[in-house]
Amino acid sequence: MKSDLEIMRTFFQEDKFVALSGIEIEEVSKEKAVVSAVVKPEHLNANDCVQGGMLYTLADFAFAVLCNYLHPVTVTQSGRIDYLRPGFTDKITATAIEKERAGHTTICEVIIKGANGKTLCVCAFNGFIKEVDRDEFMKKYKDE
Amino acid sequence: MKSDLEIMRTFFQEDKFVALSGIEIEEVSKEKAVVSAVVKPEHLNANDCVQGGMLYTLADFAFAVLCNYLHPVTVTQSGRIDYLRPGFTDKITATAIEKERAGHTTICEVIIKGANGKTLCVCAFNGFIKEVDRDEFMKKYKDE
Amino acid sequence: MKSDLEIMRTFFQEDKFVALSGIEIEEVSKEKAVVSAVVKPEHLNANDCVQGGMLYTLADFAFAVLCNYLHPVTVTQSGRIDYLRPGFTDKITATAIEKERAGHTTICEVIIKGANGKTLCVCAFNGFIKEVDRDEFMKKYKDE
Amino acid sequence: MKSDLEIMRTFFQEDKFVALSGIEIEEVSKEKAVVSAVVKPEHLNANDCVQGGMLYTLADFAFAVLCNYLHPVTVTQSGRIDYLRPGFTDKITATAIEKERAGHTTICEVIIKGANGKTLCVCAFNGFIKEVDRDEFMKKYKDE
Repeated sequence: MKSDLEIMRTFFQEDKFVALSGIEIEEVSKEKAVVSAVVKPEHLNANDCVQGGMLYTLADFAFAVLCNYLHPVTVTQSGRIDYLRPGFTDKITATAIEKERAGHTTICEVIIKGANGKTLCVCAFNGFIKEVDRDEFMKKYKDE
Repeated sequence: MKSDLEIMRTFFQEDKFVALSGIEIEEVSKEKAVVSAVVKPEHLNANDCVQGGMLYTLADFAFAVLCNYLHPVTVTQSGRIDYLRPGFTDKITATAIEKERAGHTTICEVIIKGANGKTLCVCAFNGFIKEVDRDEFMKKYKDE
Repeated sequence: MKSDLEIMRTFFQEDKFVALSGIEIEEVSKEKAVVSAVVKPEHLNANDCVQGGMLYTLADFAFAVLCNYLHPVTVTQSGRIDYLRPGFTDKITATAIEKERAGHTTICEVIIKGANGKTLCVCAFNGFIKEVDRDEFMKKYKDE
Repeated sequence: MKSDLEIMRTFFQEDKFVALSGIEIEEVSKEKAVVSAVVKPEHLNANDCVQGGMLYTLADFAFAVLCNYLHPVTVTQSGRIDYLRPGFTDKITATAIEKERAGHTTICEVIIKGANGKTLCVCAFNGFIKEVDRDEFMKKYKDE
């Protein structure tokens, strides 16, 4: 029987852009989702720090993992990213937590940190939750 | 002597994540920057439409091209993306225009459209303009 | 028979915070909504320029007027405001236009200008459109 | 000698729009700022719930109090508000915390709750910190 982490990895292995970007799911629970990427040359911008789109992609994926774990299926309505420090670092990690849920709306915060633990970006996402029963969703994948 | 478009392509060919994402600069002028990508399997999410991080990366790059053309060097302070329609399409194009500049701050709007001309995303970026003389910047690359 | 402008003024005269803030509807059409306020001492912050909440309230109201004219009833899901210049001015005017509508979602841009025509703020709003027939809504108020 | 709370109240009593809106500072420390308003008829919209501009004004002020306490003088660069639940309530309270500071930039989160403790709005602010020595600022007002 698969663990919740394995279920989410199975569910998201079909996300080809996440695969291209080299992002992995590290952890998922009702409290948070953690995803990360080892920084490689293809992640860098013209100044050799982690490119802004790569950082956003990491944050968006942390949000997607958390939301689809908590409330399958959730679609992103809007995302916002504030850049605090340039990403000169070997590894980037994004942690998503849900700030609030009301009706069909979920608001999550995602913090991106570099290898030294310093915050690179602060992000907020707004998701629309479609009506899907969570227990049925998890069960469908668990028994595979 | 290089055209402005060639200069910007030269300047940004060092952006490795943009190269990985298959994004090209189509057009740049004081009025707008246009960038695009032919949609390939690696750009898709688990639902086989263009992934949210890919869409943001396209928009962010349109902003970067315009801002660094108008006011080299500009760094992104924050980005926001609203998703309107799922990206089931063969090509995505982002057009950036500057809404307003005041002091060190520039606010740009970026619209992403699919191959059929329908808007997929509406984005806004806030950039911080460092003090660099535009004419000198362009001249440096022009004569290469 | 009431004009569309009169209908919207009637509909929104029950907005008590807008009344407290001294904001008036100047114009409404399918293309745009324009609202304004003559700046008075009570609109100022500790630095004697127009207070940030007052500016947002003006922008939010321009959005509300446009959206409820185009698609009654629309509720605000999120608002964003970027401040470009301090509001040392006698009058502030906000103009809302719809950038895109898809399904239940509308994305509008609002620009706030001072009396000299300089842009003070650039704003974006995301609204959720409830299912209400526009023609019926307008007719209900028109014949009053 | 004045307490920090008294200093901040003195500093912000010149904010006339905050006074018009009936907002009070409840608490300020390095960890957080809390501001609130007893809901009165003039705070309501046409649906008799707390108006969106009033909610934003409350959040923006919580941010302003915290930032100017931590880093005088800070100016707001951008604000974002997500509306989760309609404000049918007797009192609204906004709590600001700083998520991250780097260089001249501070990112704060503000949560607005109703009298029953339910979250009404989740907000994020980005402030630009001007170079002012905090200790001198506080001392100037302390000895008055």
